[in-house]
Amino acid sequence: MPPADPMTDPAEDRRFMAAAIALSERGRGLSTPNPNVGCLIVRDGRVVGRGWTQKGGRPHAEAQALEQAMDRAHGATAYVTLEPCFHLSPRGPRCADLLARAGIRRAVIALRDPDPRTNGQGAAWLRDHGVAVEMGLMETQARAAMAGFVLRQTRGRPAVTLKLGLSLDGRIALPDGSSRWITGPDARAHAHLERARHDAILVGGGTLRCDAPRLDVRLPGMESRSPRRILLSRGEAPSGWERIKRPEDIAALDRVDHLLVEGGAQTAAAFLRAGLVDRLLLYRAPILIGEGLPGIGDIGLADLAQAHGRWALADERHLGVDRLEVYAAARSA
Amino acid sequence: MPPADPMTDPAEDRRFMAAAIALSERGRGLSTPNPNVGCLIVRDGRVVGRGWTQKGGRPHAEAQALEQAMDRAHGATAYVTLEPCFHLSPRGPRCADLLARAGIRRAVIALRDPDPRTNGQGAAWLRDHGVAVEMGLMETQARAAMAGFVLRQTRGRPAVTLKLGLSLDGRIALPDGSSRWITGPDARAHAHLERARHDAILVGGGTLRCDAPRLDVRLPGMESRSPRRILLSRGEAPSGWERIKRPEDIAALDRVDHLLVEGGAQTAAAFLRAGLVDRLLLYRAPILIGEGLPGIGDIGLADLAQAHGRWALADERHLGVDRLEVYAAARSA
Repeated sequence: MPPADPMTDPAEDRRFMAAAIALSERGRGLSTPNPNVGCLIVRDGRVVGRGWTQKGGRPHAEAQALEQAMDRAHGATAYVTLEPCFHLSPRGPRCADLLARAGIRRAVIALRDPDPRTNGQGAAWLRDHGVAVEMGLMETQARAAMAGFVLRQTRGRPAVTLKLGLSLDGRIALPDGSSRWITGPDARAHAHLERARHDAILVGGGTLRCDAPRLDVRLPGMESRSPRRILLSRGEAPSGWERIKRPEDIAALDRVDHLLVEGGAQTAAAFLRAGLVDRLLLYRAPILIGEGLPGIGDIGLADLAQAHGRWALADERHLGVDRLEVYAAARSA
Repeated sequence: MPPADPMTDPAEDRRFMAAAIALSERGRGLSTPNPNVGCLIVRDGRVVGRGWTQKGGRPHAEAQALEQAMDRAHGATAYVTLEPCFHLSPRGPRCADLLARAGIRRAVIALRDPDPRTNGQGAAWLRDHGVAVEMGLMETQARAAMAGFVLRQTRGRPAVTLKLGLSLDGRIALPDGSSRWITGPDARAHAHLERARHDAILVGGGTLRCDAPRLDVRLPGMESRSPRRILLSRGEAPSGWERIKRPEDIAALDRVDHLLVEGGAQTAAAFLRAGLVDRLLLYRAPILIGEGLPGIGDIGLADLAQAHGRWALADERHLGVDRLEVYAAARSA
């Protein structure tokens, strides 16, 4: 390995990698079946190229960033959230090769590609072509941003987010089922943004019958980002919907790396029982409902001790008077 | 009104008043039937006396702070969370008189005393005796710290806090009633500290029968701070307990300015239906329970619109892996 540039600054590296990870989030729910990678090209402390994996997976983040950077990529540093691909594809060039040819002098990579067709070979290629490579910077954050791709590789299934809109006392509706509105406009807009960041949304038969949800993205300019709609049911799916019979069937969903489960209580419980929830999105309104509908049915908990240690707070923010809390499954890859 | 000292500094005033309010919290649940006042005496930017209303109401905060300050009170500023008392009492001296005699030059007061026996007369007495008086600084915070006293004066009833220990999905127990433990040791210790800050704890008949709660303060050195125990029930109260039949009967509880309601769901709902909850203490554990017992029963909500605008986040903190959220009733005095 060639020595790293003596001018490198760890704080600056983290800042640029954080920016690359933020870029990668733009491709979430869009880049499938390719991972949503982010790439930043920096020369002399200035960003000269930015890219993220585009719709359907092409172009790759690196190709897009290099196209922006043009000649300025020569001697620059590339920050990439995933090891540049090495394998040949009829759909586009190999990013490791592209970076080396463009004269990139140093590549900082967050996550080694678990895809066996690359898995270290992209980095090796770069090194063989005179590029200084550092791997592992902010790997945890990059892994979280590309959770669906990682889980496809490691567990053969998409990443699953369970969304709940709750009162302080944990109710999602009045006894008659009315739930408009628990949360306010800011929280609802955020929830629509989350829809756009998933490849598909799933609800159960009860929710479909009672609420007839549209499950689309109702944000100006983002209507085309509405994800596919999936029904968990033993019955027939309506036109425009796909159907699975059991939570485990998500593994077979083609081109779904990020799945959003939106209800109801039995569906949420089925995914939790199966250990198939990686992330909780809790939109909490500062209201009390008292008697009403719970968000989660029977998850088969025999003992409170079993409930502990499974969830860790990953993010939180205020959305108007409401609050969003994001919890990550402790055991999730 | 004499002119304020030209050397006064608003930021310093706020800092010292905040300290006086923090002192006042020490007397909560202890000073009844007197308000839990805090007092700080400051000369040349240095604290020379600190006081808070002691057990049973005497000595008053000002008397205690003056005793500490001794001669140093001469020319000093007194920060008091409540207007110093003016009325004559067989139990002790009038604080307005004490402050004036001690040579206090300036009195900064948070809250005008709503007690008609003082209500502005303490401040007037101070001014008449050459003390510069400023009233209203951090009134809202002082009012919250002395909520029980204020509500006794304005509504003829104690301040009521409803405590819930919840999972993320709003459950307080498994279906069989087991609730040990939802929250961890830090949250439970904090809940015991809250007990010590109340004059009495109330539970319903169901909770008494099922959980046989001791409702004491199990913190080293604070066992003597265990509050009185009150049962909401139509039946008989066990030995060592008092009993009320309806939430409204709290008005008749002697020497109870701060009441903590600890459960169960029907009791919580009864107080909420009656509009008699001023503060919510939510201890939230990062666990999911699914099917289980809710913390709050039927509060008679006909429409979700009615539920909004009633609660505002007042405080929050991490307690180990758990979180405490404190909500204040929006309409509470």
